[in-house]
Amino acid sequence: MVYSSDGFSWTPSTGRREGLPTIGVVEPSSHSTQPEDDIHDVIVIGAGYAGLVASRDLATQGKTTLLLEARDRLGGRTWHATIDGFNYEMGGTWIHWHMPHIYHEVSLYGLHNDWIITQNPGGKEDYFTATTGSEQRNLSHEEEVDICGRVFRIFSNVDGDDLRQSWKYAFGTDQSPELMSKWDKLSCQDRLDQIRDQLTAEEVSVLEAQLMQMGGNTLDKMGLVGALRWWALGSHTPTGLNDIALHTRLRSGNSELHRRIFEHAMSTDNLSYGFSAPVQRIEDAGDIVTVTTRNGKKWKARSVICTVPLNVLSSVEFSPRLPADKVAAVQQQSVNRCNKVHVDINGPDYLSWGSLATPGKGLISAFGDHLTPADDTHLVCFGPDPESSTGISLDNLDTVKDAVVHLLPENKQSEAIVNRIVSHDWNKDEFANGTWFFPPPNATTQYLSVLQRPHGNIFFASADWSDGWCGWIDGAVQSGMQTARQVILEQGKAAVVKKKVLQKGLSIDLSIDLSKGIVRCVI
Amino acid sequence: MVYSSDGFSWTPSTGRREGLPTIGVVEPSSHSTQPEDDIHDVIVIGAGYAGLVASRDLATQGKTTLLLEARDRLGGRTWHATIDGFNYEMGGTWIHWHMPHIYHEVSLYGLHNDWIITQNPGGKEDYFTATTGSEQRNLSHEEEVDICGRVFRIFSNVDGDDLRQSWKYAFGTDQSPELMSKWDKLSCQDRLDQIRDQLTAEEVSVLEAQLMQMGGNTLDKMGLVGALRWWALGSHTPTGLNDIALHTRLRSGNSELHRRIFEHAMSTDNLSYGFSAPVQRIEDAGDIVTVTTRNGKKWKARSVICTVPLNVLSSVEFSPRLPADKVAAVQQQSVNRCNKVHVDINGPDYLSWGSLATPGKGLISAFGDHLTPADDTHLVCFGPDPESSTGISLDNLDTVKDAVVHLLPENKQSEAIVNRIVSHDWNKDEFANGTWFFPPPNATTQYLSVLQRPHGNIFFASADWSDGWCGWIDGAVQSGMQTARQVILEQGKAAVVKKKVLQKGLSIDLSIDLSKGIVRCVI
Repeated sequence: MVYSSDGFSWTPSTGRREGLPTIGVVEPSSHSTQPEDDIHDVIVIGAGYAGLVASRDLATQGKTTLLLEARDRLGGRTWHATIDGFNYEMGGTWIHWHMPHIYHEVSLYGLHNDWIITQNPGGKEDYFTATTGSEQRNLSHEEEVDICGRVFRIFSNVDGDDLRQSWKYAFGTDQSPELMSKWDKLSCQDRLDQIRDQLTAEEVSVLEAQLMQMGGNTLDKMGLVGALRWWALGSHTPTGLNDIALHTRLRSGNSELHRRIFEHAMSTDNLSYGFSAPVQRIEDAGDIVTVTTRNGKKWKARSVICTVPLNVLSSVEFSPRLPADKVAAVQQQSVNRCNKVHVDINGPDYLSWGSLATPGKGLISAFGDHLTPADDTHLVCFGPDPESSTGISLDNLDTVKDAVVHLLPENKQSEAIVNRIVSHDWNKDEFANGTWFFPPPNATTQYLSVLQRPHGNIFFASADWSDGWCGWIDGAVQSGMQTARQVILEQGKAAVVKKKVLQKGLSIDLSIDLSKGIVRCVI
Repeated sequence: MVYSSDGFSWTPSTGRREGLPTIGVVEPSSHSTQPEDDIHDVIVIGAGYAGLVASRDLATQGKTTLLLEARDRLGGRTWHATIDGFNYEMGGTWIHWHMPHIYHEVSLYGLHNDWIITQNPGGKEDYFTATTGSEQRNLSHEEEVDICGRVFRIFSNVDGDDLRQSWKYAFGTDQSPELMSKWDKLSCQDRLDQIRDQLTAEEVSVLEAQLMQMGGNTLDKMGLVGALRWWALGSHTPTGLNDIALHTRLRSGNSELHRRIFEHAMSTDNLSYGFSAPVQRIEDAGDIVTVTTRNGKKWKARSVICTVPLNVLSSVEFSPRLPADKVAAVQQQSVNRCNKVHVDINGPDYLSWGSLATPGKGLISAFGDHLTPADDTHLVCFGPDPESSTGISLDNLDTVKDAVVHLLPENKQSEAIVNRIVSHDWNKDEFANGTWFFPPPNATTQYLSVLQRPHGNIFFASADWSDGWCGWIDGAVQSGMQTARQVILEQGKAAVVKKKVLQKGLSIDLSIDLSKGIVRCVI
């Protein structure tokens, strides 16, 4: 399997090694269906879910498409590495059939039986460990579900009706503007302070841990509406979010699905691509957009779909410049700077186990996510922003191991053996600058629609500003799909002359695309 | 608005009138993009959701597609009529964002804010009326949800774990074969008899009403696995099915979505179509399939997607003949022969109301589904097979009115005024022969995959044999989408020679499709 330069792994015997093997690396790394100086219908920047789905929808619908990707692999902030027969999801992981846009892809490419369940039942340590301050308590999973659901419900119930009327349709975009603006001013910390007297100390800690796992930062940086969105997407029920969003992942991995989308697009002969081609500049001359990559190469298209993540957008030069509201939206950034760390613990005992720790020693949660072929328990761990007071750097793996051990049941900590660590430092990754999107206060009302708006012939698609599962895989697919449709409708308005001559037994179909100087004839 | 010949309406002043106005009628009623005797890439038979989605996916991916529809309108067993500004969903109605395939369509065409809620809160008669035998009781909606959920849970809990392990993934197709075959032998009546001693008499009646509403027939005709499938799709929870499948419908109606899918396909210039063109014969000569419509016209294509409903398939001649297992599967039929009747009751009081009656006087349930512009309550009512002992014919509307009044609270029955009845007799409709699919015992294990299997170059798509939401709108979309993909992959294997010549500034793209004798060149 080919290595990506992204990510690293550590074992006691090998130490730390940079780069990870993944099926996400495509060979050859570039491919052209037309002369390089030709004008493409569309250039798509970024081969994450949004860019892949957009490229597929464009290429299959007859648009010559050039996909430019800064990295050496497919997937952007979602990809899996395969080590010793086990798939580690380095970024976005869990999907579900109640996430309609990504599930449509699962269904189209026949992966409907291809699931692994996180915290699968049947392990020896079949409970949940809550470490709150210096206290630790093991809860049954029933108690875990009860307490986690109860506190998230109290937190989300800002309108006395569990948001059922105020955010009626999970994917709707017409939430009450008054209510939205009222809540969107608040941070998660503000809201916690409002309800603190309804909660026990343990409940406060549990809620803090949940929220920090959602937003990857301290609660004062996290916008309340980001969390309320997740509550609405979880069907306004205490367990809904967990059931939909942290339960099932693809056994064969997100990169497998990426490859299927990519190969479908390639089968049309309309897709050109280049990997390791970071974009420096996008210049819209009115009819033609020129994209310049860092190596100085220029590429031309009638339209561009830019899927560069929000926290990276400021590294791209736009001409004409982005308007003031877009610049302000980009400056706002996503606050999520969490660490995601895979830790293989010796032996199969922790398969069904889960945990949280507030404040923790740099990691806030861990849970069993299947067994490796070597029969170790694969734990997925999350920690907050490394720069925050409770975060840790991934440069020092001893602190990472300490943080994991701190999450374990106290009577098991001394015997715990870490057999492998796998991670990718998303915060130091110049093409991500953080992990999944989570909004700061005010961002949803002020900037969501601004970020969605095209800039001339440059369109923008990303989970970072999707409706619905904003920040999630489903949002990336939704945004990619909707933006591709937007471009197709927009280009449909362009000057295309078609002439069809029908005679007995003979059909001549002439189409002259004035904007491209291309004549197409079917006899 | 143009009238379809389908359906009928009745008011006190006009009496009964056949035919209903609907945006589902397309004008002109036929359209050709190529000479009629030319060979299409694909002929799609049927313009319901399955056929529309398949046609759209084919046409947008460059396949010349001919869509033949027996009726005078789009939609098949899902369509809405518009009368005095109100949309009556004549067939399949409710959809939801947890139905991923149909929601993908909603999202693609921008209908994400376009919802009406059935049993919307706020009406005067805000309760549920259960008429069981000669008893009648008004329940709060909390009691209703509780009793309906409780009995369906007991009914569905055949494995002691609410089916959570046995039918783990709602859309999966790899349920345990042993268990499936054990349950699939049973009818819903068999299962009710197993659990009867756990239920009160009222609970038995409530469960009978629910099941008869699901399967549109007597319980002995209905396969248990059909009901278990619905339980799994309702997230293995007592209220899940109701929340997902009977809650939200499109305000602008299913026919609006049909038109958007159709117009997307039309925008490609690859779609030809003919309405009022029932198919009589499909003949596969190995390379070319000839479809003969009842008027004697012949149409040719490389592949055919047949979406003719299960209960109508025996009216189509196949050459070569269908194999024995397919013939047996077609003979099994869907057992669902329910009546669906729209009744506008004078005044807005019943907006939030719901009811069931066992055995009832021909209708088994009714519930408020929004108010008409005239401020009447629109009730949606369901009754079992008209041929069954508890069913009624739609020919005699006095019995329909009696059946509705019987469902109302006793103290309101004398004052009830019916202002309008709208319905379509799906059982007498030769292109439906029943309503949504519900399997008899044994059908799921014996015939589901048989019905899905292609017959030479003839492919089959329908909600009637979909995975997932089998019998529902989501299943139709899934089946249409998956079958179109199957055909595209299959035709991709056909002999196509492509030659690309690249020179400085000049690209000549020649593709010669040997199976069609078509040369395509792009200069």
